[in-house]
Amino acid sequence: MHQVVECVPNFSEGRDQKVIDAIATAIRDTVGCTLLDVDPGASTNRTVYTFVGDPEAVVKGALNGAKAAHRLIDMAVHKGEHPRLGAMDVCPFIPVRDITVAECVSCAKQLGHLLASELDVPVYLYGAASSRDYRKTVAQIRAGEYEALATRIKTAEWEPDFGPSNFVPQWGATMVGVRQFLIAYNVNLIATKEQAHRIALNIRERGRGKSEPGRLPAVQGMGWWLEEANMAQVSLNLTDHDVTPIHLAYEEVCKDAAALSLPVVGSEIVGLVPLRALLQVAEFYIKRDGLLVLEEGQKVRLAISKLGLSSLKPFVPK
Amino acid sequence: MHQVVECVPNFSEGRDQKVIDAIATAIRDTVGCTLLDVDPGASTNRTVYTFVGDPEAVVKGALNGAKAAHRLIDMAVHKGEHPRLGAMDVCPFIPVRDITVAECVSCAKQLGHLLASELDVPVYLYGAASSRDYRKTVAQIRAGEYEALATRIKTAEWEPDFGPSNFVPQWGATMVGVRQFLIAYNVNLIATKEQAHRIALNIRERGRGKSEPGRLPAVQGMGWWLEEANMAQVSLNLTDHDVTPIHLAYEEVCKDAAALSLPVVGSEIVGLVPLRALLQVAEFYIKRDGLLVLEEGQKVRLAISKLGLSSLKPFVPK
Repeated sequence: MHQVVECVPNFSEGRDQKVIDAIATAIRDTVGCTLLDVDPGASTNRTVYTFVGDPEAVVKGALNGAKAAHRLIDMAVHKGEHPRLGAMDVCPFIPVRDITVAECVSCAKQLGHLLASELDVPVYLYGAASSRDYRKTVAQIRAGEYEALATRIKTAEWEPDFGPSNFVPQWGATMVGVRQFLIAYNVNLIATKEQAHRIALNIRERGRGKSEPGRLPAVQGMGWWLEEANMAQVSLNLTDHDVTPIHLAYEEVCKDAAALSLPVVGSEIVGLVPLRALLQVAEFYIKRDGLLVLEEGQKVRLAISKLGLSSLKPFVPK
Repeated sequence: MHQVVECVPNFSEGRDQKVIDAIATAIRDTVGCTLLDVDPGASTNRTVYTFVGDPEAVVKGALNGAKAAHRLIDMAVHKGEHPRLGAMDVCPFIPVRDITVAECVSCAKQLGHLLASELDVPVYLYGAASSRDYRKTVAQIRAGEYEALATRIKTAEWEPDFGPSNFVPQWGATMVGVRQFLIAYNVNLIATKEQAHRIALNIRERGRGKSEPGRLPAVQGMGWWLEEANMAQVSLNLTDHDVTPIHLAYEEVCKDAAALSLPVVGSEIVGLVPLRALLQVAEFYIKRDGLLVLEEGQKVRLAISKLGLSSLKPFVPK
């Protein structure tokens, strides 16, 4: 069995198909990398790439993607619904098989070093790769977004871990880090952005304000508006699906939406989902609805149907 | 406003992509024809093509599709879940805009004449194009299917309306006719073919046996197994969606399925659906669930989500 690292860089371009494709090609053409998913969003103006490989390959794949972005993305003119700091906004390495967190931290530091030396752009380490509590999370580092970076980057507290301490308008800055596997799960709502965000605050684990009840542990979330789909989403990260499984997040969003007379119109999983997480979903509905379902493939089909999943991506067996 | 006729030929090939594509290309390349949908089925081994155009164009488009099928399909070796009589099995012309049934009957007769004169194959008229009650419906003409045709075609009762009265093994026979617009609607079930068919018998208007309760008027139906999807379908034709709207058919299938502990896993519309039929669906669920939905596009999204529609095709405004 080989070592497998998952790498999920988010690039700040979700509209121009040529740019989206160029980054995909750069990653796909990297020896040892398998590109599993490309998920562009027009409203977020952001594309999430999901690929896997051994530690050496994924660092090269991420660097090659960044090089394409460096040629093609200009952050000085970027606008989008999703918070962002740079052209390659965030690049997490995630341990999948036969690999330690420490080895993934090493990947992150290698990539940070290469981005600085080859592209001369600022890089912040985050997650398990960061050694400072005040700049540990993406939210901490991205506070104020790209627009605040010009002044922030010159302060001692926000000196980059790699690369120049001056603002690079065309690029912004990149956050490179290590996190555990998570399920990126969005529930579609016919609602306003504010209503979707209200529901996200209701159910996510904790927020910044006291008014957030935070019903579900191991859930991060926000609401946003998808102009291209004319609908809102409650966008969730499920960081431990044994604690809060997908169906529980879905049902809780449905409950809050129903209380507001808002229709839930399906959901989507961005990137990878463990097969086991879908089987959990199936088992829940089989039990709740008293269904007869026999085969694993039929259980997956049931889970897709019950959640109204519009785009199911390849599984990582875990 | 131009005259618009819809033509929905069903060809007996649903597996070989080259054949499926060749027929599609022949139709698409016919001047004046707009090919809206190609829906192949591996288990049925049959592909439904939906195209529109003026009366002259659709006759040519259907003939061109038939010529491709004549080169590429051999009925002597055809097997599939769906009943069939010939390589171009059935070809209905459907009045859509500024066109009478009589003009569509004229299209059917022109096509019948051309199939006989250019391909030398037998043709039966059906529906509004048929003048004999005992050979009016597809079911009447297709009884015994391709296999029975060899002997049947030589009888006086089953002399074709056009073409030779002898069996053409490579082709079988084609039914050309006129019908009113209908919605081809399939509900996906994790069940056996027999269970799906039992539900179809329960809800369709009338069947051959006394044991069929026939709950829903203006509904034809049967159950079949989709090997490629590892599931069954209750396959329905809704011939008048003001009498039995889509959501009623869906909810009735769900009711019967629940009684048997069988999961319903979405549904599909094959070919065209009037926008108004989807808005009816939305209005039903808006009322039932007390939802707030404002725009027409959002209503369509709601309908798609509530029915779990996997493949929605272009609308014909009616």
